[in-house]
Amino acid sequence: MAADPRFFPAGSALTLAEAAAAAGGELVGGDPALRITGVGPLQSAGATEVSFLDNRRYLPLLADSRAAAIVLAPELLARLPEGRVAIVTKQAYLGFGRIARALHPVAPPRPGIHPTAAIDAAAQIGAGVEVGPFAVIEAGAEIGEGCIIGPHAVVGAGVVLGEGCRIGAHASLSHCIAGRFVVLHPGARVGQEGFGFAVTPEGRFETMPQLGRVLLEDFVEIGANACVDRGSQSDTVLGAGTRLDNLVQIGHNVSTGKGCVLVAHVGIAGSTRLGNGVQMGGQSGVAGHVEIGDRVQVAAQSGVMSDVGPGEIVGGSPAWPMRETLRAFAALRKLAGRPAAKPAP
Amino acid sequence: MAADPRFFPAGSALTLAEAAAAAGGELVGGDPALRITGVGPLQSAGATEVSFLDNRRYLPLLADSRAAAIVLAPELLARLPEGRVAIVTKQAYLGFGRIARALHPVAPPRPGIHPTAAIDAAAQIGAGVEVGPFAVIEAGAEIGEGCIIGPHAVVGAGVVLGEGCRIGAHASLSHCIAGRFVVLHPGARVGQEGFGFAVTPEGRFETMPQLGRVLLEDFVEIGANACVDRGSQSDTVLGAGTRLDNLVQIGHNVSTGKGCVLVAHVGIAGSTRLGNGVQMGGQSGVAGHVEIGDRVQVAAQSGVMSDVGPGEIVGGSPAWPMRETLRAFAALRKLAGRPAAKPAP
Amino acid sequence: MAADPRFFPAGSALTLAEAAAAAGGELVGGDPALRITGVGPLQSAGATEVSFLDNRRYLPLLADSRAAAIVLAPELLARLPEGRVAIVTKQAYLGFGRIARALHPVAPPRPGIHPTAAIDAAAQIGAGVEVGPFAVIEAGAEIGEGCIIGPHAVVGAGVVLGEGCRIGAHASLSHCIAGRFVVLHPGARVGQEGFGFAVTPEGRFETMPQLGRVLLEDFVEIGANACVDRGSQSDTVLGAGTRLDNLVQIGHNVSTGKGCVLVAHVGIAGSTRLGNGVQMGGQSGVAGHVEIGDRVQVAAQSGVMSDVGPGEIVGGSPAWPMRETLRAFAALRKLAGRPAAKPAP
Repeated sequence: MAADPRFFPAGSALTLAEAAAAAGGELVGGDPALRITGVGPLQSAGATEVSFLDNRRYLPLLADSRAAAIVLAPELLARLPEGRVAIVTKQAYLGFGRIARALHPVAPPRPGIHPTAAIDAAAQIGAGVEVGPFAVIEAGAEIGEGCIIGPHAVVGAGVVLGEGCRIGAHASLSHCIAGRFVVLHPGARVGQEGFGFAVTPEGRFETMPQLGRVLLEDFVEIGANACVDRGSQSDTVLGAGTRLDNLVQIGHNVSTGKGCVLVAHVGIAGSTRLGNGVQMGGQSGVAGHVEIGDRVQVAAQSGVMSDVGPGEIVGGSPAWPMRETLRAFAALRKLAGRPAAKPAP
Repeated sequence: MAADPRFFPAGSALTLAEAAAAAGGELVGGDPALRITGVGPLQSAGATEVSFLDNRRYLPLLADSRAAAIVLAPELLARLPEGRVAIVTKQAYLGFGRIARALHPVAPPRPGIHPTAAIDAAAQIGAGVEVGPFAVIEAGAEIGEGCIIGPHAVVGAGVVLGEGCRIGAHASLSHCIAGRFVVLHPGARVGQEGFGFAVTPEGRFETMPQLGRVLLEDFVEIGANACVDRGSQSDTVLGAGTRLDNLVQIGHNVSTGKGCVLVAHVGIAGSTRLGNGVQMGGQSGVAGHVEIGDRVQVAAQSGVMSDVGPGEIVGGSPAWPMRETLRAFAALRKLAGRPAAKPAP
Repeated sequence: MAADPRFFPAGSALTLAEAAAAAGGELVGGDPALRITGVGPLQSAGATEVSFLDNRRYLPLLADSRAAAIVLAPELLARLPEGRVAIVTKQAYLGFGRIARALHPVAPPRPGIHPTAAIDAAAQIGAGVEVGPFAVIEAGAEIGEGCIIGPHAVVGAGVVLGEGCRIGAHASLSHCIAGRFVVLHPGARVGQEGFGFAVTPEGRFETMPQLGRVLLEDFVEIGANACVDRGSQSDTVLGAGTRLDNLVQIGHNVSTGKGCVLVAHVGIAGSTRLGNGVQMGGQSGVAGHVEIGDRVQVAAQSGVMSDVGPGEIVGGSPAWPMRETLRAFAALRKLAGRPAAKPAP
């Protein structure tokens, strides 16, 4: 399947040799001069498209693939059917992505401010910035060079965006300092008041002033309709390169290290701290005031209620070390009169 | 309770006979010429309003209901107190709905484009389309006959909407081809970049170009603030009549069959395929690259980690066949020193 | 850490004595005339800032805190290191909040209507209302005195907002009657059609007309991107002072009592009723047509499938009385060959 030209401008064609180079891989077989026009999955890639394989589940598709070449890792080369062409690289997925990017470069900003945008006179707009229809940029905001502010986006008073940020349609930011190349997808909410209040003797709730900020380090990405509340007294911080999927919730005063990955519907309660490279599966959560060490992995739908040490893998609700949780599920299965079997991870 | 006229224009009154006809049911008792002015629940429906009963839990309310008539199934007719009026039909809920619809028809579009809307000269707007304030329709978009584009909605470049679609306030679409009578509720996000990236040898994330689309077949409905990511190389597809509740997440390359029902906070990870008529309870999820057969039912909060065959009912996290999960819960209950009892489904 | 003046106008300074008075507490040690300029957490509060302690977990931070004074409860006074200053009050967190509020009062509305706002001639706007850029206020809407309508907010036809409501950026309301001092955070969705439909004999879904409203009582707060569907025949009601965190889902016909607290990602299915003071942890849910008594507490990630009596504490999925669930987890742990230990709450 070629990318739909209605949405993706036809990429500058590459030769197969150029594609292999872009992937940092070695071309095995095939005509180096063949012109590549696109990329696609094994089952639908055409004769001038490059595909890839990194999930053994899809090995059976190799036989019938019409792809011009298949990017794969050295250990899979032996599985390549007679006469098929491969681009061999240790990072098959990365290499494939770089070919796709070479064919379909990221659209640069179209510098200019849409006539309908509402930009406060006291806002600073950097060189080469694109501002879409009905965008709002409030007083004191600073928009770095080459940012793209999408239609209806609202950049609140005093917000700072570094160079090359991309703010999606309908996203809103307030009380936020963002670094370079930060991405907000449509409808993302950053910097709103956190969920903090005290109870009066009469049983009424009084909102606790939320006097902190959100600090987004370089290359942070925040998914569609995800929410990042500002801190109450300290700041909420997302470390460099951290990526939030859609509909993730980050409570006030939370901090993450560099390169954390939080999948859709993850929720992190207030004042919890994640180390570097923490990965959380979909719909999992962490309670408030908890410390999660570097490189911790949390299984989907798990609920972490207490501190977790570096490198641990935890699962279940409440979350235990994964090995114990799997043993518990196996035991439970047996109690239920079912032959033991490996529970899904 | 009559519908509040501030929000619902007074419906064209029906006679009781016309109401029975609209429901495809039989009037048992009552004056066929009585004028019906509205609908309401058993406990609050007035003397000119029609109510319904399809949940035995509410049988006790029959005695005191003042409703002009109660739509119910034949097997419940015997429970109708002396002197009460019934409209009897096999599909009581459907019949009741059709009476309500006859009294309160869907508001048709008010053809015209609000002067504040920003519509690209290269967009095509069909006949009888209503476009609200501050709506944005980008270059190459095609809006079918009789569509309603709500206030602040953003229809991205090249997006195609078939006849009679309704796009709610603040909803956004990009990279999407939609069929006829598709509904997006407020804040729904369709077509944004999926959550795909590769890791470099230096440990940085590189976004994988997301070169697919979202295909929404006829009558698809997407809830408020729900998210449907576009495909990476293939497309993300929602089959005809599929309904997503609010805050649902659909990952890239996911496909569903016809008439699937996904309740609030459901999450489907990338490249998973659902068959026809799959039903998923609230806060349940499915892992990536999994196949879910036709008519599978997934209990609320369940986590499906592997393929499920047609017609199966699964529950728990990880999800097992429901019968085994219930046995496991019962055994666990016993271990906890609690008298066995039927766990909630 | 002082509040960032880019986002928080410097508060009117207080003396330490005035701070203690604001907190309704007693100053123990320190110079009553000392000028307080801000608030902050124990580890970062400066010599003219007030901090607080109400979580024993942070007791070790007392020794090194440079705070001008620390708000704490009488029972913690003994833990205060020699020479440190305290403001002693039974409600330390509330008292601290009141000092913060005295230093940083809520910004009042800036009366006036932004020239870009689209306000229907048939809408009523109260005295002193602030309306932001691109806000939409439809026919028949009534906006109470001193409301703030944020940028891009959409207040639908006939919607009523009482005095002092604050509607965040991109929030939308329809079919809603709100009391006084109601707050919607950015992207909140209130009043859209509920998830109700009937199945035809041909297997098609027909939308059930959703003819109810949303009633928001005084002081209700709704989090960013949270969703509250309107009723189908009856109304959806949130009781006075109830607070929803971000991304919460409230189905049609749900009602809550006064002062309920629903943490992020909570989902309440249709027609369920919560009493007063119900507290639900993050990612927990309640099935439809269920009754939850006053002051019930539901643990994070729990799934409540049936009625719960007043004052009960439940947890697990399915949710059981917390004591039994903890026993079950302990038993399961033992089965998994792990030394028994207190499972996380």
